[in-house]
Amino acid sequence: MSGGLDSSTCLAAAGRESFECSALTFDYGQRHRVELQAAARVAQSLCVARHLVVRIDLRVFGHSALTDDSAVPKGRSEAEISAKIPVTYVPARNTVFLSYALAWAETLEASDIFIGVNALDYSGYPDCRPEYIEAFERMANLATKAAVEGRTRIKIHTPLIWLSKAEIVKLGRELGVDFGLTHSCYDPDPAGRPCGACDSCLLRKKGFAEAGIKDPLGF
Amino acid sequence: MSGGLDSSTCLAAAGRESFECSALTFDYGQRHRVELQAAARVAQSLCVARHLVVRIDLRVFGHSALTDDSAVPKGRSEAEISAKIPVTYVPARNTVFLSYALAWAETLEASDIFIGVNALDYSGYPDCRPEYIEAFERMANLATKAAVEGRTRIKIHTPLIWLSKAEIVKLGRELGVDFGLTHSCYDPDPAGRPCGACDSCLLRKKGFAEAGIKDPLGF
Repeated sequence: MSGGLDSSTCLAAAGRESFECSALTFDYGQRHRVELQAAARVAQSLCVARHLVVRIDLRVFGHSALTDDSAVPKGRSEAEISAKIPVTYVPARNTVFLSYALAWAETLEASDIFIGVNALDYSGYPDCRPEYIEAFERMANLATKAAVEGRTRIKIHTPLIWLSKAEIVKLGRELGVDFGLTHSCYDPDPAGRPCGACDSCLLRKKGFAEAGIKDPLGF
Repeated sequence: MSGGLDSSTCLAAAGRESFECSALTFDYGQRHRVELQAAARVAQSLCVARHLVVRIDLRVFGHSALTDDSAVPKGRSEAEISAKIPVTYVPARNTVFLSYALAWAETLEASDIFIGVNALDYSGYPDCRPEYIEAFERMANLATKAAVEGRTRIKIHTPLIWLSKAEIVKLGRELGVDFGLTHSCYDPDPAGRPCGACDSCLLRKKGFAEAGIKDPLGF
């Protein structure tokens, strides 16, 4: 739960299915740490049962523009964004995130894990694809005591995986997500305002434009 | 790399295959934190290229005798140790550990991950079984940029998986592991000395006894 459009809508989608939701946020040394505040705001607004912010040791995640001083790409076209895996890729990030979610799920005796990955507007990240998610779920069901003892079957839910950004915006609005509380930008200014030009800002702009909805963040 | 018999022998086994080794140790709030010192001693003695101790947020790992105040089982028979998954099980621990290893491997441009899991004397942990390791490897090859772009194929090596504890002791000696530097106990005294009665101490004792080798830790 990063506090962006996708994870916020994903959380609302889990709530729609009447799950009692526990939100997990990662503080992994991201340069856009302002998203941690957005995550807390969104979690509170959607009435989660608990919200855990886990600090992750960033040293295993070298070589990413999200955690080091590389320049974040700006002003790229949609074709450029989709063409190859960008420098904002963080090695094995979703695998680490889902592993923590799996550990916490077992501790909470939960069996359903929601993740807001998206295979369409996904910036080319390999760990956002359905075949990756299926492989993780398969592994998870061999990994835990609860699964092996037959007490539970882990299910990784990806309600956004086949939605366009515009469809995510529409779904989020339908489910009552307050987009004014969210944060998407990879490279915000010191006051936390979005740059409007990184891949994440551009995908957000496109999503709101195509959905015909005004972004309450106002750009 | 916990600094125990298995991970120390596993590291030596990787060295035998001429890999340049990077050792990864986890500080996950374990009550037997003295093993972190053992890990550093063993890593140094086996000449690793680098040794990283990663601090893991233990709150996702509730409900384990290794991280909370539950009593560690003592004096159990071999049949009791094997019969069911014990309270020393930590939820999804190897999945979290392997995920960090995967992230670090991609950062280091490495493709080979060694883990000293054992399916025989394994205390019943589900994430020590070969079917689990295979499922993790399959997932890993769908997870990373390096794998998806065809630059590497992730291989999870488990050189100890079918060895008895006695065979691990013999292999470790053959490969020059100094067992006097290792630590196995789940519940050491304040000076770091092993209790001699927890599952881990009992499996170690049995291993040395069956191998006909004297344990330099002297019990």
